[in-house]
Amino acid sequence: MKIEFKSEREFDLIAIGRACMDLNAVEYNRPMEETMTFKKYVGGSPANIAIGASKLGLKAGFIGKLADDQHGRFIEQYMRGVGVDTTQMSVDHEGHKTGLAFTEIKSPEECSILMYRDEVADLYLHPSEVSEEYIKKAKVLLVSGTALAKSPSREAVLKAIHLAKKNDVKVIFELDYRPYTWASPEETSVYYTLVADQADVVVGTRDEFDIMENLKDGSNEATVSHLFKHSPELIVIKHGVEGSYAYTKSGETFRGHVYLTKVLKTFGAGDSYASAFLYALISGKDIETALKYGSASAAIVVSKHSSSEAMPTVEEIEQLIAERSKEAVTNQ
Amino acid sequence: MKIEFKSEREFDLIAIGRACMDLNAVEYNRPMEETMTFKKYVGGSPANIAIGASKLGLKAGFIGKLADDQHGRFIEQYMRGVGVDTTQMSVDHEGHKTGLAFTEIKSPEECSILMYRDEVADLYLHPSEVSEEYIKKAKVLLVSGTALAKSPSREAVLKAIHLAKKNDVKVIFELDYRPYTWASPEETSVYYTLVADQADVVVGTRDEFDIMENLKDGSNEATVSHLFKHSPELIVIKHGVEGSYAYTKSGETFRGHVYLTKVLKTFGAGDSYASAFLYALISGKDIETALKYGSASAAIVVSKHSSSEAMPTVEEIEQLIAERSKEAVTNQ
Amino acid sequence: MKIEFKSEREFDLIAIGRACMDLNAVEYNRPMEETMTFKKYVGGSPANIAIGASKLGLKAGFIGKLADDQHGRFIEQYMRGVGVDTTQMSVDHEGHKTGLAFTEIKSPEECSILMYRDEVADLYLHPSEVSEEYIKKAKVLLVSGTALAKSPSREAVLKAIHLAKKNDVKVIFELDYRPYTWASPEETSVYYTLVADQADVVVGTRDEFDIMENLKDGSNEATVSHLFKHSPELIVIKHGVEGSYAYTKSGETFRGHVYLTKVLKTFGAGDSYASAFLYALISGKDIETALKYGSASAAIVVSKHSSSEAMPTVEEIEQLIAERSKEAVTNQ
Amino acid sequence: MKIEFKSEREFDLIAIGRACMDLNAVEYNRPMEETMTFKKYVGGSPANIAIGASKLGLKAGFIGKLADDQHGRFIEQYMRGVGVDTTQMSVDHEGHKTGLAFTEIKSPEECSILMYRDEVADLYLHPSEVSEEYIKKAKVLLVSGTALAKSPSREAVLKAIHLAKKNDVKVIFELDYRPYTWASPEETSVYYTLVADQADVVVGTRDEFDIMENLKDGSNEATVSHLFKHSPELIVIKHGVEGSYAYTKSGETFRGHVYLTKVLKTFGAGDSYASAFLYALISGKDIETALKYGSASAAIVVSKHSSSEAMPTVEEIEQLIAERSKEAVTNQ
Repeated sequence: MKIEFKSEREFDLIAIGRACMDLNAVEYNRPMEETMTFKKYVGGSPANIAIGASKLGLKAGFIGKLADDQHGRFIEQYMRGVGVDTTQMSVDHEGHKTGLAFTEIKSPEECSILMYRDEVADLYLHPSEVSEEYIKKAKVLLVSGTALAKSPSREAVLKAIHLAKKNDVKVIFELDYRPYTWASPEETSVYYTLVADQADVVVGTRDEFDIMENLKDGSNEATVSHLFKHSPELIVIKHGVEGSYAYTKSGETFRGHVYLTKVLKTFGAGDSYASAFLYALISGKDIETALKYGSASAAIVVSKHSSSEAMPTVEEIEQLIAERSKEAVTNQ
Repeated sequence: MKIEFKSEREFDLIAIGRACMDLNAVEYNRPMEETMTFKKYVGGSPANIAIGASKLGLKAGFIGKLADDQHGRFIEQYMRGVGVDTTQMSVDHEGHKTGLAFTEIKSPEECSILMYRDEVADLYLHPSEVSEEYIKKAKVLLVSGTALAKSPSREAVLKAIHLAKKNDVKVIFELDYRPYTWASPEETSVYYTLVADQADVVVGTRDEFDIMENLKDGSNEATVSHLFKHSPELIVIKHGVEGSYAYTKSGETFRGHVYLTKVLKTFGAGDSYASAFLYALISGKDIETALKYGSASAAIVVSKHSSSEAMPTVEEIEQLIAERSKEAVTNQ
Repeated sequence: MKIEFKSEREFDLIAIGRACMDLNAVEYNRPMEETMTFKKYVGGSPANIAIGASKLGLKAGFIGKLADDQHGRFIEQYMRGVGVDTTQMSVDHEGHKTGLAFTEIKSPEECSILMYRDEVADLYLHPSEVSEEYIKKAKVLLVSGTALAKSPSREAVLKAIHLAKKNDVKVIFELDYRPYTWASPEETSVYYTLVADQADVVVGTRDEFDIMENLKDGSNEATVSHLFKHSPELIVIKHGVEGSYAYTKSGETFRGHVYLTKVLKTFGAGDSYASAFLYALISGKDIETALKYGSASAAIVVSKHSSSEAMPTVEEIEQLIAERSKEAVTNQ
Repeated sequence: MKIEFKSEREFDLIAIGRACMDLNAVEYNRPMEETMTFKKYVGGSPANIAIGASKLGLKAGFIGKLADDQHGRFIEQYMRGVGVDTTQMSVDHEGHKTGLAFTEIKSPEECSILMYRDEVADLYLHPSEVSEEYIKKAKVLLVSGTALAKSPSREAVLKAIHLAKKNDVKVIFELDYRPYTWASPEETSVYYTLVADQADVVVGTRDEFDIMENLKDGSNEATVSHLFKHSPELIVIKHGVEGSYAYTKSGETFRGHVYLTKVLKTFGAGDSYASAFLYALISGKDIETALKYGSASAAIVVSKHSSSEAMPTVEEIEQLIAERSKEAVTNQ
């Protein structure tokens, strides 16, 4: 099965949601209390995916809201610099700040993030700032789950999805669950279900699908059985080092394997996976190949210091795949 | 065309949303500043509809949240007294109060309402308080637009709709737009669109459909053309004294006329209309007859002092229709 | 001892704080659930005291904030009607509502109040709305403790006290403690202590002084010993039916007795006490006489339906005192 | 004139208020957008003063609230490491974060700070966490104005001042005005006036005293004339490069001059000034000498990268004073 995209559209992908700032530990392998210096990078799942897609050669745009300060301007300049269209990134004028993520790298297995997400600018994207003219120029609208966590960003995203569906733009829903900001697990479940039912492609970890279903230890079979009654035609469920499964409405299942590399830290893996997987799909590759692209991209990013700046090129991805050609994808 | 309901269900109708209190001017025909005494009644659109439906002989239930005080207890006792099942009306334990509506009756043409809706108990209904077991016992889930105005009531309603659709319960969406509480017109439009697209029947005034579409002077044709691409099979658009139009997905249009009576005040008209219209539909009457029932019920309530206590019986409605048999409904 | 007031001032008394609305049960001796009709009156401790003082012949003014609706206009009209200067009652333009108090009169011993105090207009009085020109026209600034419960009303009152002291206006602090609105007992204690230390006269029940001191079963001796190290020169501590004690900085103690009457309800007692006590002080009467005036006024109000409209005249008070001349005040 | 301190107290100085984190630009002389690396330091005016005082040999304690995360733990560890007693620094358990200050050093004249102060942990210090037993062990309670900006920190500070005065602890009020967080200029003025009236020593820039008085271009004469009617016995008003003035209740005025040095950045000057000035006063030096200590300490800190870590020793201060002995303090 292949997903069909409207080939004549100006933008391959438009992402909506948060663009914020990572402050990554310069000194590794120690608790954050002892980390004295931090290096800044653009961060936030949909921003990372847009950056990653742009570095892979896709034409990407972004709908978001930025703080009216030095950090906000840095984000816009960086994203524009790597080729992302930032004309729909509006500036907050009510004093909201850029979201921050301080990263701690104790060891490859012990990474944690200290988040600043209270009243951040990205959650103040307003539905009136979402333009139908813009959205209908895209093949794909990439929606990040965290943007649904709070009003008015929540309504901006719901409006964007409505406009995407009205204009035959494929909706890709990256669950991207972050526990802070949400009022309750029930609230998350309500909006995740609502959006997943309307999406064309849903991507997340097994844990994130459990959050969507507000249960523990859910099964992939139940998940896809529910979702295929609604809009989705492709569902990707990631199981960490065990790899990922892609299910199609037409009944196929594909398994993707992880490429083992020297891991520096685990964050950034999901975003790099998503950008390369989408690149492959939009470029017309089949799902097996797209799974390989996703895994290769993730393997490259976890071996580097940042999430955004480390996003690989197509050459790097293809080289890794070639090198590891024995790690296969099996059509089960 | 007829709407088909699951005939074996225990409840004809379960309403969800606000049950609050009206304080109606005892002294009429004067500004509220000079009104010294107020009489209390149960109020709130979905509560009125449940009460009206119960008085018409339907088995009605209610999902809502009540203040933990004398006003909350009055509402529960009154609704139970007229036959509404109140087992799913939970009690707030965080100090939220009952919503209030002080009514001013200067003249039949000049009625106004002074609302207390800040932090009221009904808006704190939580999604965890919405039970699938309960909803699947109903033929109809009646959703009131105001319950979408704020979290967590908003998510409770979205969850209830999800469960209704999953269990073949018809969703009736009464737009019931009240400008207070909502953060912005865009926000209202996002949720009204989202819910209307999923509903089976949508009922509102032309002004309320304009709110849903976030435009001015919208046309019925555009409205129904959009909605019939989604779930709705019946749409009722009310145009005040000019009567109402009912549109079916199968392409029919019916016009309902207003029964002119001695008007004391205008509020309560919409709720009494809805309860009698739904009564007729659920009882298996055709749409022309349902429109007559709605109009007759509204005509009776606007001539009386309250919205809830004035809800008519089937005999009163049928007597009025018989008396006014010349005021016709025309299939256009 | 006598309190000395600046005799040339235009206003005998300016009160600051809440003016709101009581909705008193028309049908008595039943739980509120069964009370169907409510009669409205102006309410709120400082408003009642200003109204009471005005009816006793004092020139009273009021600094407060009113809702921009029919209830707000009623309050202003009523207060102006009984002679209170309302030129410093500003109107809220942010949609805040009038505070409400529904009263339940089950029996003379069982009265309760259901309060609407969330986001009410009176708590939005802003310090910029407090005028030094106005305050310096007064002999007395009457401060009600509830106005300290929330910002910006809290800061408006603190500013008014600062201006009063700067301009030799006597500050009377009526503790008027209401548990709702305050964030914590510690918060109440901090502001009550701060204001009591700066006041000239402090009036409250023993329970209210315990709240101020954040302890249980406090002693009058400890209370006055602390306060007399600061500004206060007169402290009145009320002990319900056991009467009240007035302590002077110069070391005198006076006891006031309660006049027993047929009680309809207990609320309104404190406000009527304060207005008549202050009337007597400002009129140059001695403290023993002022205690009698307070008790007589309270006795009259608790036998009537409202708090504000029932405020007695000087003749009524003096007649009651004459009739009950055996109920004495003793200088201990 | 000399300020008399209770010599037998365990702590020379206890500071109350915010302890947060500075993230100083590692790369200088460029806009923050282009600064890629930040170095962390403990920051916040009262924390800096406590650290500075401790490095000068005073026994210092701190009352504050820390985030329950790596940044909070870093602050506690650092302060404890330089000798500050941290036993009264409580840990927030409601998810509030450490306040942050990103600094931009474009040039010595153009320094700006990007603040994260929304819902930060230090503003959640609760009055119940302020212990009389602790405060009464101190010679001096140092109060920072910013801690008054929001409840419940505001009430914690007001309680601390009440306890300090009750126990003969000298209250030093460092105005430390930061425009964010405050709701309005009137609000700031109300609390600054309230606290300054109760303080023994008030220290601030001329601009900060204007904020306190809610006016523009105020005069030192009017300021000291008002404050000397209340508790203050010493007032220090700083005029930037023109130096500072110290006024005593007994009528003396002293002028302090600035020591010119190679300036790297301007922030930190006020805190280093305050810690050395207080050190000198507490050590029994006269006011002229204390002004020199303050100026010398400020001169040292502005030439270095941080505010806290750069706090000088007594030797460094005395060496600078000796070198610059021609820059005099004149008794006017």
